[in-house]
Amino acid sequence: MDRFEPNLRIPGPTALPPSVREAGGRQMINHRGPEFAAMLGRILDGMKPFFGTTQDVAMLTCAGSGGLEAAVVNTLSPGDRVLAVSIGSFGDRFAKIAGIYGADVTKLDVEWGQAADPQAVREALTSDPGYRAVLLTHNETSTGVMNPIRDLAAAARETSPDTLILVDSVSGLGAVPFEMDAWGVDLVVTGSQKAWMAAPGLAMIAASERGWAATETAKMPRFYLDLRSHRESAALGQTPFTPAIGVVYQVDEGIRLMHAEGKDNVFARHEACAAAARAGLTALGFALFADPANASKTVTAANLPAGHDWKPFNTAIKSHGVVLAGGQGKLTGKIFRLGHLGSVTVGEILDAIAVLERVAAEQGRRIEPGTAVAAAQAAALAVQTAAVPTTSPAPSEADRAAVPA
Amino acid sequence: MDRFEPNLRIPGPTALPPSVREAGGRQMINHRGPEFAAMLGRILDGMKPFFGTTQDVAMLTCAGSGGLEAAVVNTLSPGDRVLAVSIGSFGDRFAKIAGIYGADVTKLDVEWGQAADPQAVREALTSDPGYRAVLLTHNETSTGVMNPIRDLAAAARETSPDTLILVDSVSGLGAVPFEMDAWGVDLVVTGSQKAWMAAPGLAMIAASERGWAATETAKMPRFYLDLRSHRESAALGQTPFTPAIGVVYQVDEGIRLMHAEGKDNVFARHEACAAAARAGLTALGFALFADPANASKTVTAANLPAGHDWKPFNTAIKSHGVVLAGGQGKLTGKIFRLGHLGSVTVGEILDAIAVLERVAAEQGRRIEPGTAVAAAQAAALAVQTAAVPTTSPAPSEADRAAVPA
Repeated sequence: MDRFEPNLRIPGPTALPPSVREAGGRQMINHRGPEFAAMLGRILDGMKPFFGTTQDVAMLTCAGSGGLEAAVVNTLSPGDRVLAVSIGSFGDRFAKIAGIYGADVTKLDVEWGQAADPQAVREALTSDPGYRAVLLTHNETSTGVMNPIRDLAAAARETSPDTLILVDSVSGLGAVPFEMDAWGVDLVVTGSQKAWMAAPGLAMIAASERGWAATETAKMPRFYLDLRSHRESAALGQTPFTPAIGVVYQVDEGIRLMHAEGKDNVFARHEACAAAARAGLTALGFALFADPANASKTVTAANLPAGHDWKPFNTAIKSHGVVLAGGQGKLTGKIFRLGHLGSVTVGEILDAIAVLERVAAEQGRRIEPGTAVAAAQAAALAVQTAAVPTTSPAPSEADRAAVPA
Repeated sequence: MDRFEPNLRIPGPTALPPSVREAGGRQMINHRGPEFAAMLGRILDGMKPFFGTTQDVAMLTCAGSGGLEAAVVNTLSPGDRVLAVSIGSFGDRFAKIAGIYGADVTKLDVEWGQAADPQAVREALTSDPGYRAVLLTHNETSTGVMNPIRDLAAAARETSPDTLILVDSVSGLGAVPFEMDAWGVDLVVTGSQKAWMAAPGLAMIAASERGWAATETAKMPRFYLDLRSHRESAALGQTPFTPAIGVVYQVDEGIRLMHAEGKDNVFARHEACAAAARAGLTALGFALFADPANASKTVTAANLPAGHDWKPFNTAIKSHGVVLAGGQGKLTGKIFRLGHLGSVTVGEILDAIAVLERVAAEQGRRIEPGTAVAAAQAAALAVQTAAVPTTSPAPSEADRAAVPA
């Protein structure tokens, strides 16, 4: 490997920026003291613009899947009818959790690689008005598809106004626009190791007024993931149980970086990286797995052509220092995935595409040298030059100091 | 504050040694790759001598309280009768969790400050043979009492051989001897931020053959905390959900340090620090809260005398850089607690006692200068000179290299 740090291009955990790494190495503090309270307040408030909400946010020490469980058990009761819209592995997981806790789950299965159709949701809710909740995946990490949550939520809300809309945005939120309040979404889950540029270990959850009200009547058993106790403790600047303080430091720093960059610039960066990934992989001859109209901005999946086995392919790529992800579940051995979320830069995508060009050359596949990298760069540049940020980065202390009084 | 880093003397999170801090600042890796698998293997194997078991250990991303919930929901079914022996806040919590998930819980409440009596457990199980499980707290962090788990487990096992014995040792394991297999304990929970010298975020759980068998028949609902999926994934060098990788790095390093120091030396260090804390606080005029026969080796609780309000007292102590914990629950404002676990040294206890001497002097309480520190040191020294370690620290690479061939 002729480099000194791998290019970690899996769809989370993502590479940590230097200041986030440093935050992870800080000494412990009292989690019941004022320093922690200030930090928790910064995080919960700092996330609200990315959730698109003015409602309370909760921070739990668990993986994103723990957050999905929290979404289910805090809003539902055994026997509640649930429409689980699944477009991949994580949609299946959301449905499975609801079933384990006694919900009466109807699956609306969408072909993997496709997004859910708002019309299908409308029809499902029209034909059967008894659903207590609809489960939606925003970004399906297993297939590289991003669902049109605004449209899906609108379809659900207009058809069945009282049905709860619960959204898994573990790998979407923070990287792309999301407007929980405006879209009428009732609960959204995200995870620290995705767009937030921190290590794994924390799930953040926001809920609407309707969502928070549901936590008061839901009868599924819960203790560790009980959002009521998290909300009560947060009002005191605490968490009900000892939090993963090192990850809290990192999320605090990650959000600081995101606000300094500016929300729209963060989104534009993800858009440019996604465009580069798609163009580069296509130029390399790979067919993209996801419907182009709903391609994810945070992870791109590509088909492995016949005779192109994942294991030797991955070994070759890793030998040059790029870490990709294989397929999950029924897609194992059929696709590979290139993650582009969190601290990702266009340069890192070009680097990954360059290594894929190199592996192609080593394996005797004919690709004109530089064409894939050029295609990736052209696609990124098209986004970068089209993007007109509507939010500006906050001036740094140094900038402020440099302004003459 | 005339120092440069606080002396964090709460009973967890504990201060991180330098190399553990550095581990927390490392870059992320693929949690489905060989590097993570090797690390997970080292941790699970490295913990076994401290659990006193040859059985499988599971590592979950959650707080210790999540580990307690895992203990309950993985071994029990709704309606199961449970004897919950509580000697404080955390015993109450263990019982509460079992109740939330539908167990039929009988509390055996012990006066706070006292340990549980094996004879009382024997009688409870004799008078009513239908208990599926007994819940025990090893180290009750809220009162500074350490239960005699060996004797309590023996009493339970001899009276009711098939009853599961589930132990909360979140703040005990790793700091004092524990022999899960030899004592006939069925499940033990511990937490990364206690004896293991790492940040919070991971709970480790070991189970006996009987305990693992119970996970196959238990009917309480579970997904995120399901020990079966953790065991299956661990066999592949993985966790079922994305783990708190930064904390995993730290626990890996913490265990390395513990093995380098030697198990018995770790225990002797905790014993010396505990003796110093008790002697120092007593010499300062505080009455210790816990029954001396069962005083905790990891946290010491002392009564706040009449007229000695916690808030101004704590403010004064904090102003000199020592961070203590107040009382929890019904002990709020009545006691304070001094933690001595994890990376604690006798010097740090002397420092805390010195600050308490200083605060006493500032507040006009008459204590002969140096007497409390001297008493603490004498108590530590008595342990240090009596301790004859039966395990030696593993020779370091440097030591090995220094041995002539």
